[in-house]
Amino acid sequence: MSRDLSDDPFASSDSIRSARPLRYAQYVTFDEPLLLEAGDTLPRVTVAFETYGKLNDRKDNAVLICHALTGDSHVARHDESDDIGWWDIMVGPGLPIDTDKYFVICPNVLGGCRGTTGPNSINDATGRPYGSDFPVVTIEDIVEVQRRLIDHFGIKTLHAVIGGSLGGFMTLRWATHYPERVRGAVALATSARLTSQGLAFDVVGRNAITSDPEFQNGQYYENGQGPLVGLAIARMLGHITYLSREAMTAKFDPHRADGRHIKTRFETRFAVGSYLAYQGDRFGDRFDANSYITLSMAMDLFDLGGSFEELTEVFGRSKCRWLLASFSTDWLFLPFQSQEIVNSLVATNKPVSYCNIESNCGHDAFLLPDDLDRYGEMTRAFLDNLKGVHEPLEDPMATIIPAGPTSIYQYSLEYELILDLIPRGASVLDLGCGGGGLLARLNDRGHKQLVGVELDELAIVACIRRGLDVVQIDLNEGLSSFSDQQFDVVVLSQTLQAMKNVELVISEMLRVGRRCIVSFPNIAFEPLRTRLTEGGHAPHTDTSHGFHWYNTPSVRYFSILDFEDFCRDKAIRINQMIALNTSVGERVTENPNAHADMAIMVLSR
Amino acid sequence: MSRDLSDDPFASSDSIRSARPLRYAQYVTFDEPLLLEAGDTLPRVTVAFETYGKLNDRKDNAVLICHALTGDSHVARHDESDDIGWWDIMVGPGLPIDTDKYFVICPNVLGGCRGTTGPNSINDATGRPYGSDFPVVTIEDIVEVQRRLIDHFGIKTLHAVIGGSLGGFMTLRWATHYPERVRGAVALATSARLTSQGLAFDVVGRNAITSDPEFQNGQYYENGQGPLVGLAIARMLGHITYLSREAMTAKFDPHRADGRHIKTRFETRFAVGSYLAYQGDRFGDRFDANSYITLSMAMDLFDLGGSFEELTEVFGRSKCRWLLASFSTDWLFLPFQSQEIVNSLVATNKPVSYCNIESNCGHDAFLLPDDLDRYGEMTRAFLDNLKGVHEPLEDPMATIIPAGPTSIYQYSLEYELILDLIPRGASVLDLGCGGGGLLARLNDRGHKQLVGVELDELAIVACIRRGLDVVQIDLNEGLSSFSDQQFDVVVLSQTLQAMKNVELVISEMLRVGRRCIVSFPNIAFEPLRTRLTEGGHAPHTDTSHGFHWYNTPSVRYFSILDFEDFCRDKAIRINQMIALNTSVGERVTENPNAHADMAIMVLSR
Repeated sequence: MSRDLSDDPFASSDSIRSARPLRYAQYVTFDEPLLLEAGDTLPRVTVAFETYGKLNDRKDNAVLICHALTGDSHVARHDESDDIGWWDIMVGPGLPIDTDKYFVICPNVLGGCRGTTGPNSINDATGRPYGSDFPVVTIEDIVEVQRRLIDHFGIKTLHAVIGGSLGGFMTLRWATHYPERVRGAVALATSARLTSQGLAFDVVGRNAITSDPEFQNGQYYENGQGPLVGLAIARMLGHITYLSREAMTAKFDPHRADGRHIKTRFETRFAVGSYLAYQGDRFGDRFDANSYITLSMAMDLFDLGGSFEELTEVFGRSKCRWLLASFSTDWLFLPFQSQEIVNSLVATNKPVSYCNIESNCGHDAFLLPDDLDRYGEMTRAFLDNLKGVHEPLEDPMATIIPAGPTSIYQYSLEYELILDLIPRGASVLDLGCGGGGLLARLNDRGHKQLVGVELDELAIVACIRRGLDVVQIDLNEGLSSFSDQQFDVVVLSQTLQAMKNVELVISEMLRVGRRCIVSFPNIAFEPLRTRLTEGGHAPHTDTSHGFHWYNTPSVRYFSILDFEDFCRDKAIRINQMIALNTSVGERVTENPNAHADMAIMVLSR
Repeated sequence: MSRDLSDDPFASSDSIRSARPLRYAQYVTFDEPLLLEAGDTLPRVTVAFETYGKLNDRKDNAVLICHALTGDSHVARHDESDDIGWWDIMVGPGLPIDTDKYFVICPNVLGGCRGTTGPNSINDATGRPYGSDFPVVTIEDIVEVQRRLIDHFGIKTLHAVIGGSLGGFMTLRWATHYPERVRGAVALATSARLTSQGLAFDVVGRNAITSDPEFQNGQYYENGQGPLVGLAIARMLGHITYLSREAMTAKFDPHRADGRHIKTRFETRFAVGSYLAYQGDRFGDRFDANSYITLSMAMDLFDLGGSFEELTEVFGRSKCRWLLASFSTDWLFLPFQSQEIVNSLVATNKPVSYCNIESNCGHDAFLLPDDLDRYGEMTRAFLDNLKGVHEPLEDPMATIIPAGPTSIYQYSLEYELILDLIPRGASVLDLGCGGGGLLARLNDRGHKQLVGVELDELAIVACIRRGLDVVQIDLNEGLSSFSDQQFDVVVLSQTLQAMKNVELVISEMLRVGRRCIVSFPNIAFEPLRTRLTEGGHAPHTDTSHGFHWYNTPSVRYFSILDFEDFCRDKAIRINQMIALNTSVGERVTENPNAHADMAIMVLSR
């Protein structure tokens, strides 16, 4: 058997392309010495970069894109005839990073091998390539060189910095080290540092390279082929970590014992083996082993901290708006790592949106079209809503209808009453915010600190389209990311009955908010009593929505009286109660436990 | 800084020990040629093995233990002064595999390097070590050699075969290929084949070894040191896969940037790096690179199938009783892979117990003491209850009290009535079986095919102690492992109200059982009606157990009438209903929807 490998559609987070010349690359050389974090100095630095779109007169529409481990400046095609770029699906006219609106800059990173100064550059001191004399560089150094490039353009503030994986590290550095110079930060599939497991894979890869006899202590440029075997081993290993187990199963299991016949020094017995051999062999054609060592070491050395305290200290410095996204099957940069960053941002009142996107694609997801409808659209909406460039979208709900479990419970009367209970200018956390209807109204009223919490991905997209900040949190696990008394008001509208951990949710609300507004259906509403007593049926509050006792999202049943008892037992003060009969659209004052189908309560400790 | 590495307590699934001579190893040589699966022939095979305990006169108390990738015959100490064995926590007098009761045999596997014929053995044809002339061997071949050893002892039927990881593969082969010769099979942290991801790691490891110039095409024994670098790389990589991410974080994150100062050719910059370097360097002292290639290839070639049909065909051949356990953080041999085997066994009516054990230890868990209280005790109870050696334990509940969410609902009246509804000799599936009370009673009554389903680990241990077969399944995900109409009776006692997916659970019961018995609390019981109508409180059925509306395990509320409506809507036949007032211990015949607090229904399609 023999299959054509040349058009293999399986992209990777350091997407494979030929080492063709970069036709559109521009170059700038900075002659001031660059003092590196680790103490060494580079006498001068050349940067290769490509640009897309036009820098406007105010120079405030620039978007910096940071590439991943083995990427380069060629983020997208410049025209139809151009070679494909590594993020063609994201960057271009009308695409999420719209080059009709934004001036996109993508530089090759310091230490790389595609035009920017790196180990394969000539060392002025010797007149020969640096090789392993190239100093250790860090993400801090890489960003410093990018900063010089931005200065070179006369850009004071970047509209946004965007990057995934290692590029995400640069994004985090930009936003926390140059807070005044970044309006928005988009960090995809990244973390504040690698896990020890991720670090271990890098170590093994480097060991494979440096112990290849052809490595020659890094001075292989003028003698031999270079450590192609070690580099291929490192690449194979990296490749495994970029893919999800699920994606590998789908791709290789159907013909797992059938290796492809390719010319290689490596094992081809199994489908996955011949694939790895192919990827490993090709990699040496386009990437330099010393750059691989330099950049993977920069990745490993990046460490913004492992504790909540360290992270809040670092991320508390930022002044930009944030968008973070992780991918559910990414096991190299795990969702919980993005959540740690998000936690530190929300704890320090930074505007942030976050979603963990359901995906089969593993770490590579942010480069693939499969989940573009979410991470792409979130990025588009985020960029377009950053202050200073565009007004919020006209009708953010027109194309995306949130399908969150809470959205079905929104009654307009309840909605107006909750708005009335929120003091002018108050900071508000809306738990289970759906498509952001309540928050958008508050935003219109001029409230400044508004945060939504939601689980549904499309509802999150809708919120971001409205220019709102929304983070994905499972309320049943508490609100640990928020600090004590962080908000003037916390709202939980028609959601409590769907929570398993009622005690935790309520106590977390009271911890985080000075005033809590909770609304819920009342099981002791008279028609429901009648339903049980005369009809012999369980009293259910949401049958009008097509649900039955066996499939309703509700899992908790309680009356106004039950909730009052609960508050008394838990020493929670009920400051105010508004009882409603929503079927007639009226407030209820007399015997609410019998006459109201819904209650809104204002709680505090 | 410097830490002592010599007493590193971090064991591994191919546990590290010195290459000290095996003082207690015995050897037997089989002179009949061994025809291998792949077509080659070995003219004769020597097996190194160790034994513990005494073979009884009937020769029916032998337990075969199969080691993992780089293990050997030294499974445990023979006396106080002996070197430690790789499974000292499991094998010995009074331990789970009790050498006071059982005669334990542990052979080094074919292709290994610790006494049994392998690549470092002398090839009679050349008078020199085989090297890479050693033929490809498979798990089938390895088991064939073990079979010769068992014959050599005159053992007809093994009391049990036990193995984890690669040793689990051998266990699966024994039980499905020699069904008459195995009474019990204990397969820990194993699968019917590797995932493509797992296979990929093996491929990269072998590529590292074979592309090491010192490999010399496998003929390195008489010339040089051997491919120590490549072997070390493979070992480092393997090591990462044996540990969970969580375990690596716990071990290395506290001092991640502090490499230990050890003499090595590899990188020691990071804590995890110096650890891997140390493990990699040591490995070459005790293990042979050709054996690593041979055995990892045997692992990769093992493939009992990827589809349910293939697996049921293979596992349907077995005649033994089964115990399988997986570990929640094992990402090399994943829990779903054990579940696939379990599914094929239950679908073909094979007696099997299974538990996915909550663990932080990754694949190594089955070798470590952390989770021994569960996998060890399950193994002990399983071995001791295998027919023919011991009677069931006297009082299996005495030391272990199951804490499953369902156990609180057991009422003795309901219990007796359900027993009465089960015809003599019927096969029974008990969903949410707790500690196995109902099944034990049925067992006493002589029922043959009894299976329990339970989530709680300790309840599962209790069931196995009672000699029952119990598998861990989340009922909310259905009963896909069971086939249509597999059981005469399926019981779901006092559990339906805690299920989110009521429709799925009921429809799955009706698919799997000819007759279904469901019991549940009745929300329309008169005192509950009064509670709502007169008290204004939500009607809750389990307040007497200390639960409240906000923390009850119940999530579904329905009356007898509601359930009848449900059955009518879904075209489910109610063959019989028994209504109870459990507070007075009486059956209710008049207006049960008002006078009964519980109903037992017999359902069918």
